Amino acid sequence: MFCKRLINCPSLQLLKTSFVYRPQAIPPINLFRKMSTVGKPIECKAAISYKPKAPLVIDTITVDPPKAHEVRIKIVNTAICHTDAYTLSGNDSEGMFPCILGHEGSGIVESVGPDVTTVKVGDHVIPLYTAECGVCKFCKSGKTNLCGSVRATQGKGVMPDGTVRFHNSKGEALYHFMGCSTFSEYTVVADVSVVAIDPTAPLESVCLLGCGVTTGYGAAIKTADVQKGDTVAVFGAGTVGLSVVQGAQSREASKIIVVDINDNKETVSRQFGATDFVNPTKLPEGQTIVDKLIEMTDGGLEFTFDCTGNVQVMRNALEACHKGWGQSIIIGVADAGKEISTRPFQLVTGRVWKGSAFGGIKGRSEMGGLIKDYQNKKLKVDEFITARRTFDEINEGFEDLHNGTCLRTVLKF
Amino acid sequence: MFCKRLINCPSLQLLKTSFVYRPQAIPPINLFRKMSTVGKPIECKAAISYKPKAPLVIDTITVDPPKAHEVRIKIVNTAICHTDAYTLSGNDSEGMFPCILGHEGSGIVESVGPDVTTVKVGDHVIPLYTAECGVCKFCKSGKTNLCGSVRATQGKGVMPDGTVRFHNSKGEALYHFMGCSTFSEYTVVADVSVVAIDPTAPLESVCLLGCGVTTGYGAAIKTADVQKGDTVAVFGAGTVGLSVVQGAQSREASKIIVVDINDNKETVSRQFGATDFVNPTKLPEGQTIVDKLIEMTDGGLEFTFDCTGNVQVMRNALEACHKGWGQSIIIGVADAGKEISTRPFQLVTGRVWKGSAFGGIKGRSEMGGLIKDYQNKKLKVDEFITARRTFDEINEGFEDLHNGTCLRTVLKF
Repeated sequence: MFCKRLINCPSLQLLKTSFVYRPQAIPPINLFRKMSTVGKPIECKAAISYKPKAPLVIDTITVDPPKAHEVRIKIVNTAICHTDAYTLSGNDSEGMFPCILGHEGSGIVESVGPDVTTVKVGDHVIPLYTAECGVCKFCKSGKTNLCGSVRATQGKGVMPDGTVRFHNSKGEALYHFMGCSTFSEYTVVADVSVVAIDPTAPLESVCLLGCGVTTGYGAAIKTADVQKGDTVAVFGAGTVGLSVVQGAQSREASKIIVVDINDNKETVSRQFGATDFVNPTKLPEGQTIVDKLIEMTDGGLEFTFDCTGNVQVMRNALEACHKGWGQSIIIGVADAGKEISTRPFQLVTGRVWKGSAFGGIKGRSEMGGLIKDYQNKKLKVDEFITARRTFDEINEGFEDLHNGTCLRTVLKF
Repeated sequence: MFCKRLINCPSLQLLKTSFVYRPQAIPPINLFRKMSTVGKPIECKAAISYKPKAPLVIDTITVDPPKAHEVRIKIVNTAICHTDAYTLSGNDSEGMFPCILGHEGSGIVESVGPDVTTVKVGDHVIPLYTAECGVCKFCKSGKTNLCGSVRATQGKGVMPDGTVRFHNSKGEALYHFMGCSTFSEYTVVADVSVVAIDPTAPLESVCLLGCGVTTGYGAAIKTADVQKGDTVAVFGAGTVGLSVVQGAQSREASKIIVVDINDNKETVSRQFGATDFVNPTKLPEGQTIVDKLIEMTDGGLEFTFDCTGNVQVMRNALEACHKGWGQSIIIGVADAGKEISTRPFQLVTGRVWKGSAFGGIKGRSEMGGLIKDYQNKKLKVDEFITARRTFDEINEGFEDLHNGTCLRTVLKF
């Protein structure tokens, strides 16, 4: 606990100043920090998920130093995404417990293991649940942002060498999550799973680029590649859906219809660029949402996006596409075992069913561009922060997700 | 019957010569033909499908003259496609009885209705079940070969004005089929549903471009746009599947795997360009066809094609695609009510599910190119003809489809 407390002490600058005058007594703070943590385990605060459906337990854990090609990051901010809640719900077939959840964060590199060349101590960084190694078959294909380098171990909750860097106070191993585990004051990630960013970008905001905003915005501008004049429907007006909306707006889509069962989402949808809002639970009797959307667009949409994870919604999104060319993009994560279905005739007559992970964005190559879009006010990010909390309030943050007006709760260590 | 017999008389040229010397007694043959049929009903031979699952009845029907924007064609050859058998089976939700089936034919324009400008009497033609009007939203989109101009009426078995041109000997109306109805010595089609072709191309062969060959070849070179080095799997080694194979071969695919439960298809598959053949019923216990294909291709295929109409096969075809970029193209027509399913994760991780109708080929714009490919020996067509029969043997032709080595039976009037 000592290490952690000292490093996080609000009066650190004061102490540092004091130390200048007593170099023999106590080493200068930078050296002290380096000596005290680099290459050594760090004890720090984390939120442990011991089992599905249970509140997270805030406790002290030990974070081992990074091994070769690994980076230890001091997390400054982390948001709570529905995918964290999804895994916590027990519906994620890849969920491993006990673990440290969290994958939408930002921080500063505390130390790096051997052979790390892409980030250095002090860099401001965003952990990436979609790695980018640049040399695997996937990265070199030019066809996808999915990287094969750490996928197998990431899916098992361990680091690329098959071990974990987290242990609780009893010495029990804690699994990693999505290669990020941002619900810990310190985390260790693979060097292919982290990107250095412009240090002038506010960490509190850009942590949202670690998942939700990038996922939606990228799905519109990269995966779908929406063009001027296209019609777009977005199912689900959360952070991902509203980011699709702003991606579609940036491409000058002619119609951007948000579909959500919560009428409270209409105002915010329009603020992000929606031209229309439809509550599918309030249609005239006998009219389906597919009928409604086809009617609104003279035959269906150029692009539809599922941002709900509900497989029936995914079907509706596909079937609302225009015959001949409409494309439906699945972004939401469905419960384990759930399947999508449709009549094959829907595809034979020209509709295309595809998906998008992390918006098709290559995290290390393209995050800088998104940060610039944000800094140039082309990409809304701050507007998604509907609550700010201390890390200790993480369970309240999860409860915020059930609040109909919540977009993102950002936690600060 | 008189008209039909005279027009089809093998000694027509002899009669014509004789007539030259007796112009006052009987008009010259061309004038006679014109007077005898243009603008008038024609009685001719046709195969009537009175109800699902019953043999076709060969009988004399009356074919009304073409109305505005319609073309009456003397069918010279017609093949029997699985789609004819499918509708005859009763599993086609759009099937209307009694009707004149057949959609893979070739013939010669006998007469045209008012306002027809794109074909003329005597043109060699192929009827098109996928129309191309050139002016509808679909045709002008540049994104699809599906044309909206006659779709609604075609699906109801009637001409664009809502009526039929066929009646049986009792005067009962007979529905049209797929806008073609080639199982009649004379048929009437919309002018947007027919393309004139090079008259030197043998009608017996190019009738196969009316469906099967074009559907498979186009799916590979247009819908999928297979590139050099790509890996391809084709499920179902019928005419469509083997045409996908030759399309993939023409694009220099690195691996072309044919999947079929009939081992007799291996030889012909390799003749058309397959590099590998897998019988999914003969895999080691516990190995699925998806496992096998992924193993054969280091992770899955760039493109897979379902040419079976079996929804479980469609699923396998999708799931055998390479993560990140593999695309599965559904070509086969499923039984009414059948649905495709998969876990959405398959799409979120980069696989794309799409379909292809008539190979994505615009019949009027692009048929000429296919004919040239055939004439230049780039496209195999003759090789699909595994049986030739007279039209009277049409029911035997349907039985040929159950023969494991049958590709196409071509009928001649």
